[in-house]
Amino acid sequence: MHFRCQKKDLVEGISTVQKAILGKSPMAVLEGIYIETGANEIIMRGSDIDLSIETLVSSSILEDGRIVIDSKLFGDIIRKLPDATVEIATMENNTILISCENSEFNLLYLNAEEFPMLPEIGNREKISIREDVFRNLIKATSFAVAQDESRPILMGVLFEVKNKVLNMVALDGFRLALRSEYLESNEDLSVVIPGKTLNEVSKILGDKNELLYISFNENHILFEVQNTKVVSRLLSGSFIKYESIIPTDYKLQFKVKRAHLAQSIERASLMAKEGSSKLIKLQIENDRAVITSNSQFGKVKEEVSVHMEGDAIEIAFNANYLLDTLKVMEEEEILLEMTSSVSPAIIKNTVVDNCIYMVLPVRLTR
Amino acid sequence: MHFRCQKKDLVEGISTVQKAILGKSPMAVLEGIYIETGANEIIMRGSDIDLSIETLVSSSILEDGRIVIDSKLFGDIIRKLPDATVEIATMENNTILISCENSEFNLLYLNAEEFPMLPEIGNREKISIREDVFRNLIKATSFAVAQDESRPILMGVLFEVKNKVLNMVALDGFRLALRSEYLESNEDLSVVIPGKTLNEVSKILGDKNELLYISFNENHILFEVQNTKVVSRLLSGSFIKYESIIPTDYKLQFKVKRAHLAQSIERASLMAKEGSSKLIKLQIENDRAVITSNSQFGKVKEEVSVHMEGDAIEIAFNANYLLDTLKVMEEEEILLEMTSSVSPAIIKNTVVDNCIYMVLPVRLTR
Repeated sequence: MHFRCQKKDLVEGISTVQKAILGKSPMAVLEGIYIETGANEIIMRGSDIDLSIETLVSSSILEDGRIVIDSKLFGDIIRKLPDATVEIATMENNTILISCENSEFNLLYLNAEEFPMLPEIGNREKISIREDVFRNLIKATSFAVAQDESRPILMGVLFEVKNKVLNMVALDGFRLALRSEYLESNEDLSVVIPGKTLNEVSKILGDKNELLYISFNENHILFEVQNTKVVSRLLSGSFIKYESIIPTDYKLQFKVKRAHLAQSIERASLMAKEGSSKLIKLQIENDRAVITSNSQFGKVKEEVSVHMEGDAIEIAFNANYLLDTLKVMEEEEILLEMTSSVSPAIIKNTVVDNCIYMVLPVRLTR
Repeated sequence: MHFRCQKKDLVEGISTVQKAILGKSPMAVLEGIYIETGANEIIMRGSDIDLSIETLVSSSILEDGRIVIDSKLFGDIIRKLPDATVEIATMENNTILISCENSEFNLLYLNAEEFPMLPEIGNREKISIREDVFRNLIKATSFAVAQDESRPILMGVLFEVKNKVLNMVALDGFRLALRSEYLESNEDLSVVIPGKTLNEVSKILGDKNELLYISFNENHILFEVQNTKVVSRLLSGSFIKYESIIPTDYKLQFKVKRAHLAQSIERASLMAKEGSSKLIKLQIENDRAVITSNSQFGKVKEEVSVHMEGDAIEIAFNANYLLDTLKVMEEEEILLEMTSSVSPAIIKNTVVDNCIYMVLPVRLTR
């Protein structure tokens, strides 16, 4: 193997495929980057079995071949090279020679044959969606994915296409996030994508609003964006029937400036007891939300003006669950709907009806 | 106690005095910020006994008094408040009320009487030096302070005034850093300032090139800059007679571009074995420095062109010791002087003769 490419292109390729490489792996080859020569490019790949990322880096190919090279060391070396042409060639004793201006590195490489192939997806119909739109969908939902492994299906985000609407849904038993977008697709489908995969895909999506192509087979999902392919295992099993758990009725509805509510909750949470539940209390009455919290160090009272319709309420939440939601929402004014101190609260936009968030209250012991 | 001030002034004051507060302390009062009312300002103070920082925040004083308030909680709360007027007043049950727009916090405070006083320095002669000049002196030397406590005096930087020249010197047994500046002073003196103190002073020094005033008594040093005073214990004992250990003779002298040398050493060190000594080898010959290193993963060779006078040499170093020095130097071209593979190397400027760095080589076992 022997090729030449530009340092900055190679760094971009390395950064992309490293997103699939976890570091320590029982399979030594998975701590490495797979490199294979193509026609006018090299094909680079990183994998942790569940998730594989492949990208192309334009190169002048002088001799065909393929190797696997330690991801961390190779990445560190290439990043520190001067911004110039890098030449890489296999030498005797399973080493490669990396040359760039006045630098020469000899590194051991691993056998490329043991590196896993990219799973085949076949020629299924492809869904296309703008990069920025999909990135927003991920941001708006993936934070609500379950972190514990007791119900593995909840560690994924539901990707559901129904009548040309894409719904993405995550829930963890304490809160739920649902966001929807129009999608040009003739087929309905429903799969569950690991939260980790979506977070890595999100990092790869650029600012250029190019199209991202998505296709599936029974067990895998393929994302294609420009020169890069991401293939991930899908989660098996059925997702929770989320529609049946979202209340549609309420006794109190109020409008509030999202930033004001978020800042007040953030301050109030400073006084909330540390630990699993950052407890804050909300009292909504007379067009005011009064937020209180206390601990052994003192207490806090915050007031936010709201525009309410319906009954006054006193309800308590884990501050972090509300803040996570308020942070990913985008509209200036939002709408909250509540029924009682023990029923879930709903948070929505006031203008564009494209999301529903649900947060369970904390039951107050008196 | 009762006063009003601007949130952003208060945040600045908190950030300044927090530099002296270590967090957990066996004396609860030292985890707090001391606040005392003055005429048109509050006096804030943080202390860890060895180091105390005091600053003024302009305020409208409504009632005199003094308190100590938990540093972390108070800082977190004030930083999150809206950018507006903050009102703070003591209330019943040893609490203060912090009010700002629609936020109200009640916090427990501690008794201010137990808080240590600022050590008195007396009316000694004050040395004055520009903030930016002193910050450069700190940066250029404090990195070489010893990290282990086996010889406490080496955990400080020598501050020596001799014939209107200020020499600052740090050394740790493996390397030495000396930087000098002209100073308008009629008195000669020699004290050792804890490295930690200088690092905190450096963070307080602003970009405005105002004057910093320095004064001493037997045991303490006082830094005064604008509204802030820093008082630190001095280290007791005599510093090593550094002049006698800096070689003046050499067999090889070479000029090199500082950035080229640093980048090559940085790359070479990627292949050096991890651990205490990041070993790299330099071979200087025929106006070229060839830098090599190797480990079980491979090897590296870097070439840098130099302009040499004297004998060729082969010598090995801990890469980090060279890099630390090259990073704090400022000139584009620097001068290195060496005698043998077992004698210390000297690194100097080529233009302004205001620093001497010394690095011990690593003895190669063959």
